[in-house]
Amino acid sequence: MKSFSKNQLQRYPIYLKYFKSLSDEGVVDISSPKIAKELGYSEEQIRKDLQAVSDEAGRPKKGRNVHKLIETLEGFLGYRDSTTAVIIGCGHLGGALLNYPNFDEMGLSIIAGFDVDSQKIGTMMGGKEIFPLDKLSNLLPRLNAHIAIVTVPVGAAQEVVDTAIASGALAIWNFAPTHINVPSNIVIENVNLASSLAVLSHRLNATLSKEEK
Amino acid sequence: MKSFSKNQLQRYPIYLKYFKSLSDEGVVDISSPKIAKELGYSEEQIRKDLQAVSDEAGRPKKGRNVHKLIETLEGFLGYRDSTTAVIIGCGHLGGALLNYPNFDEMGLSIIAGFDVDSQKIGTMMGGKEIFPLDKLSNLLPRLNAHIAIVTVPVGAAQEVVDTAIASGALAIWNFAPTHINVPSNIVIENVNLASSLAVLSHRLNATLSKEEK
Repeated sequence: MKSFSKNQLQRYPIYLKYFKSLSDEGVVDISSPKIAKELGYSEEQIRKDLQAVSDEAGRPKKGRNVHKLIETLEGFLGYRDSTTAVIIGCGHLGGALLNYPNFDEMGLSIIAGFDVDSQKIGTMMGGKEIFPLDKLSNLLPRLNAHIAIVTVPVGAAQEVVDTAIASGALAIWNFAPTHINVPSNIVIENVNLASSLAVLSHRLNATLSKEEK
Repeated sequence: MKSFSKNQLQRYPIYLKYFKSLSDEGVVDISSPKIAKELGYSEEQIRKDLQAVSDEAGRPKKGRNVHKLIETLEGFLGYRDSTTAVIIGCGHLGGALLNYPNFDEMGLSIIAGFDVDSQKIGTMMGGKEIFPLDKLSNLLPRLNAHIAIVTVPVGAAQEVVDTAIASGALAIWNFAPTHINVPSNIVIENVNLASSLAVLSHRLNATLSKEEK
């Protein structure tokens, strides 16, 4: 199996989105220089990224076939095989993810939510039923869900992750803004808004201090 | 001004959260090896990260003072100076961000939302008023907001970003899963759930194919 860096993996959905928009506009072929100009990556990086997932080379002048690129990337990203997930924590962020319309096309099927709030338990959010959190260890194996999406408050995060893993979850998509410990055979990916905001704020402050000079 | 890599900047909020949890537990001093063990970074990286923002060295055996580390990081991350932002697109994700309780303590003050939905315009979400999108160019300069948080559908994203920048926004926090072009003097930071999911799925598939063997 080829190895891919995290940064590289993160670029493929961005390529795919761009190629789909080209396809919608009726574009048949696309060259690396054109992709580079639009997405702001170097030509060399684009060629490397695309060659890593496709055997087909670009043709001189014409470039690559957009339709084939879309097929290749959808296959590589697993958008055609559905992976099952549950959401733990159905507050504002969990509710937003339950209602997010684009996960299905990315091969992620969210089939249930879990929460401690008796007002939410038994209701539907985004068409999915909300179950009591204390049923997680009982239901997770029966739902055959590989991924637990964690959107609980920081103080509860490690405990629900431990429960999810003990109940068979193989991957944790963590939105709680805290460090979570998982065994080495478990996959974890963090979406940390505080980290993203730190990058934004640091660059903005550099801009503002330049303006003041 | 020292230069910081993106990965490095992303780690500081994680350190800060950890130091705050230690402080809550009454811990006074912390050593690099202990931090390394808890957060999973190397000791060398931790020392380098902390030395980049603080003049104070750790003391042999005792380590660093937790309270001073918190002060230093809050200052570095700008958590004590409030930056003003608006949210453009008040659907499920925008609504979740408007209701997110932790931005204030990170120095981000979201003061208004903008949307095209007449059902939402004039209502309050998370205590902030929702204005019509076509008032953005008029209101943004008056609100003196530096950051535009973009949570509109993909098809509308570039256009609202162009409007926000023309109206004085200096930084774009983009949650729309698409590439956005901005002038070189404008700061942009993307939170792309599709990219995060691509990393998670790729690693999960590697785990699953190992299990099958």
